[in-house]
Amino acid sequence: MATRSYAIIGTGAVGGFYGARLQKAGIEVHFLVNHDYEIVKKQGLRIDSPEGNFTLPQVYAYNDVDQMPACDVVIVALKTTHNHLLPELLPSIVKPDGVVLLLQNGLNIEPKIAEIVGQNRVMGGLCFICSNKVGYGHIQHIDYSAINLGEYQDQYQPGGISDRMREISSDFQQAQIPVELSEDLMFSRWKKLVWNIPYNGLSVILDARTDEIMANPETRLLAEELMREVVTIASSYNRHLPEDHIKIMLDHTDKMKPYLTSMKLDYNAHRPLELEAIVGNPLQAAITQGVNVPKISMLYQQLKFLDARRTGNREQ
Amino acid sequence: MATRSYAIIGTGAVGGFYGARLQKAGIEVHFLVNHDYEIVKKQGLRIDSPEGNFTLPQVYAYNDVDQMPACDVVIVALKTTHNHLLPELLPSIVKPDGVVLLLQNGLNIEPKIAEIVGQNRVMGGLCFICSNKVGYGHIQHIDYSAINLGEYQDQYQPGGISDRMREISSDFQQAQIPVELSEDLMFSRWKKLVWNIPYNGLSVILDARTDEIMANPETRLLAEELMREVVTIASSYNRHLPEDHIKIMLDHTDKMKPYLTSMKLDYNAHRPLELEAIVGNPLQAAITQGVNVPKISMLYQQLKFLDARRTGNREQ
Repeated sequence: MATRSYAIIGTGAVGGFYGARLQKAGIEVHFLVNHDYEIVKKQGLRIDSPEGNFTLPQVYAYNDVDQMPACDVVIVALKTTHNHLLPELLPSIVKPDGVVLLLQNGLNIEPKIAEIVGQNRVMGGLCFICSNKVGYGHIQHIDYSAINLGEYQDQYQPGGISDRMREISSDFQQAQIPVELSEDLMFSRWKKLVWNIPYNGLSVILDARTDEIMANPETRLLAEELMREVVTIASSYNRHLPEDHIKIMLDHTDKMKPYLTSMKLDYNAHRPLELEAIVGNPLQAAITQGVNVPKISMLYQQLKFLDARRTGNREQ
Repeated sequence: MATRSYAIIGTGAVGGFYGARLQKAGIEVHFLVNHDYEIVKKQGLRIDSPEGNFTLPQVYAYNDVDQMPACDVVIVALKTTHNHLLPELLPSIVKPDGVVLLLQNGLNIEPKIAEIVGQNRVMGGLCFICSNKVGYGHIQHIDYSAINLGEYQDQYQPGGISDRMREISSDFQQAQIPVELSEDLMFSRWKKLVWNIPYNGLSVILDARTDEIMANPETRLLAEELMREVVTIASSYNRHLPEDHIKIMLDHTDKMKPYLTSMKLDYNAHRPLELEAIVGNPLQAAITQGVNVPKISMLYQQLKFLDARRTGNREQ
């Protein structure tokens, strides 16, 4: 099997961690770095992790895609709020037979990428990871690291398990990152949205941690009702989530340590919210199908208000 | 026509204003005063108002209902969160042929009063007034003062226009307070709830003034959708609000000066919210009728969360 080269677009808590682990496993990785460029160029990357701390004193770091080689796998680990940059970033760094792997939350983010690099050159991945960027080139990995991988096909038709999925999976497993292969990326996306929509949304609106949301019977019920609405939209696309998925998500959240969602961290840091990818696009998908999801609709309306007031920005 | 004596339970921004204006018009008024008792006893009441400032150096002030005479009209101008005190306060101060007039917002607050003083001894009044208590015995009246009066009958059956409504109205008009007589108190309550539910609720949840809610297209639409849900509940009780009522409320709010709702003022002051009267009881009324009002339901769930966290209290 030929070895594959990787590019990491967005060397933050997610991209920095996975890229560093791949490189540590002997794989060739090229990092696009933004603010940290000078430091990472000089000092490399540092990962603190319960699975073992390590430093990579030397990495291929770039602050300009024109300097980067074309790679086999281009991992996009930006916030979706920066996806408007991708038409400039992607074309030159994906090999003709390469693929773009979007490690991002939300729905309907792939179609625009397919417009840039072409159909059949896009994969989606859902990360189940807790990590933070704590300093320049310094990432603190807290827990989990699994990725759920799927091929993107036009209109989210199920893409099956491809050879390149297996190849990428084998690279990640070499880096001790558990990978689950999904025959149906849209199914996987809805499954994760069942958690992401209620907790990301309510944590921002109510200024609350997950444990606070779960401790109050009213908001606990609200979270469950929002989950049901997500399940209903998924069903309208013939993605029937397992009967017990909501119960599992609630139990799982009960057992989590008090947790600030990524949207709440963005909100607190005055960054724009990943509102369209995580809430707006799923809502639009419901409207397209004529599915009534009033509580998701209200969540979106409230988040748009807060996002507009806080940042003065709009997601692009 | 005999003259009527009035008792004011709750000498705050609303009760203090109306009671002072009645006394200034030559009517006998007895004020139940809480924190301000010593000052009001000594110095009376001071009203600043665009309709004319005035002071009442001497008022009948009490800090104990046992000292108060029985009156013809007992005006309850407490927050509904204090209504649990009324079984102790009311019985001795209402004349046998007297009446209790509730100047409070919300729905289904009268039944408990009828249990205390008897059916046919309860009226409801909706105040359209902007006023604040700014110091001990000192009330600043900002704008409006109109009252909408109606008889309470069991189950909110329309009570028609009674003689005592006309008499009370004449007293208020003597005090230059515009009064509108309502043949159907429940109709009037729903009409006011169309405004109160969206703006009180959203102002607390989104930490927003009315003008901010109206300036953002998402929350403006949300306010309108909440209004539609209120109208739907009202319809299920055969109270059909005028076609253009929602539009009038929206236009009216557009033209208002930036305004913090009373629920938001309570929230900011760490007082318990009038959540059950204004949102919970209308929601319960919808559930009773099998009417689906998901956005009011979500508003209630969010407010319960915020109220419980902020005050550690529950409305009684």
